[in-house]
Formats: sequence, structure tokens, C-alpha cells
Amino acid sequence: MMKSKKINIKQKFSKLSEYWSPKVLAEMNDYQFKIAKIKGEFIWHNHKETDEVFIIIEGDMKIEFHDRVLDLSEGDLYVVSKGEEHRPSAEKECKIMLVEPKGTRNTGNKKNTLTVENDLWI
Amino acid sequence: MMKSKKINIKQKFSKLSEYWSPKVLAEMNDYQFKIAKIKGEFIWHNHKETDEVFIIIEGDMKIEFHDRVLDLSEGDLYVVSKGEEHRPSAEKECKIMLVEPKGTRNTGNKKNTLTVENDLWI
Repeated sequence: MMKSKKINIKQKFSKLSEYWSPKVLAEMNDYQFKIAKIKGEFIWHNHKETDEVFIIIEGDMKIEFHDRVLDLSEGDLYVVSKGEEHRPSAEKECKIMLVEPKGTRNTGNKKNTLTVENDLWI
Repeated sequence: MMKSKKINIKQKFSKLSEYWSPKVLAEMNDYQFKIAKIKGEFIWHNHKETDEVFIIIEGDMKIEFHDRVLDLSEGDLYVVSKGEEHRPSAEKECKIMLVEPKGTRNTGNKKNTLTVENDLWI
């Protein structure tokens, strides 16, 4: 049995450099907890196979959907439903934690220059 | 498609009354995010089928294992491995969030007066 380590979520952000590049913090079963720093606008995308959880650790962000815009702040949790098109953005730097199945691509159904390697740990 | 709501994690704790009685905050796929207020000592137990994530929202807690004791504080995340015997405790009230598959019993392999109904939402 692998023993996991205690992880201080906020401290781990100091190890992140690029925006929009989630890194894996912890794994439970076949799910991963990832952290990311975000700033600016991401692309429209969806995750066909899975819901995706956003937890805001510091700062403010928006998630645009085709029919609404959601404002999220520190301490908020939101579940983006499987298959729903969304576009995350943040005016200023925002620190977030994502929970999703191992192997979930950051750009979902799109693959382009914003697509980052999966399963990179921090 | 069910649209989920934005959830402020800390605010939800005001709706909790009893200790050691996790309530469901959100669901992603077949996993649930639950919050609980804890104080005092829980029982030794394990979850045979699943890892279990603890995230400390406010306060301090311990998790005892047979070979070590872990101190957790606000902002810490810890994954208790599948099958590992553990006993959570908190000297003063502590607020935590748990992530685990839907249907996970709070007392794991034990069933007694501390066992609470699963799948109660808050």
C-alpha cells in the first residue's frame, strides 16, 4: 500500500510557473486532484466523458457557458456537467483546484497549443 | 443535463448541526463531496473499496494510523489509502470536506451508533 503524504494546497502553488497548466497534487482511486494558476481567457471546450469540479483556492474567475456566465470566488466549488461547453477565464491571476478522472485532457474535446501533458505531478 | 449550483464551501457549514455526520455538498460522476464538523474521537475503521480524501477547511485534526499519527490543519489535503485502518479525531471543532464514491459509509467496515445515513444533502 502506497502511503500518501500530507499536502498543503496553497503552498504547492509556488511550484507552478505557467498559466493554464494543471499539475497533479494527489490521486484517489482513478481520480486526480490538480492545481492550476489561470489568467486571461481559455478556450471553449467540453469533457464528453466526465463532470469536472472547480474549487477556487485564491482569487476570482469566471466560467462562461452558452446560456450564462458564472462568477466564482475563493472557497467556491462548482461542478461543470459532463459534455457542457464552457470557457474559463480570469482577469487577474486565480488559483484553482480541479478534480477529475485521471487522463482528463485540459482542453477536453479540443487539441491545440493550449493542450498540456496529462499526469504531470507537482 | 442537470445544472449544478455554485457552492460556497464555508457557508454551508452553518447548516450542519451534529458532529461526525457528513452531508453531501456536490456530486461529480459517481463521487461525492461531503462536509462534516468533527470534535472528539471517531472510531477505528477502514474503507475496503476506496481511497478517501480529507481536505481541512477550518481548524486542526489528527488521523491516527496503526504506525503513525498525522496532524492536519487548514488547507491540508490527505488521501487515506483504500483499506488502511484509521481513526480521525479533533480536540476542538474542525471543519472538513471529504471526497469519496457515492455510497461510502462514514464508519467504513463498522456499523454502529456512529454510522449515519448516506446520501443526505445539505
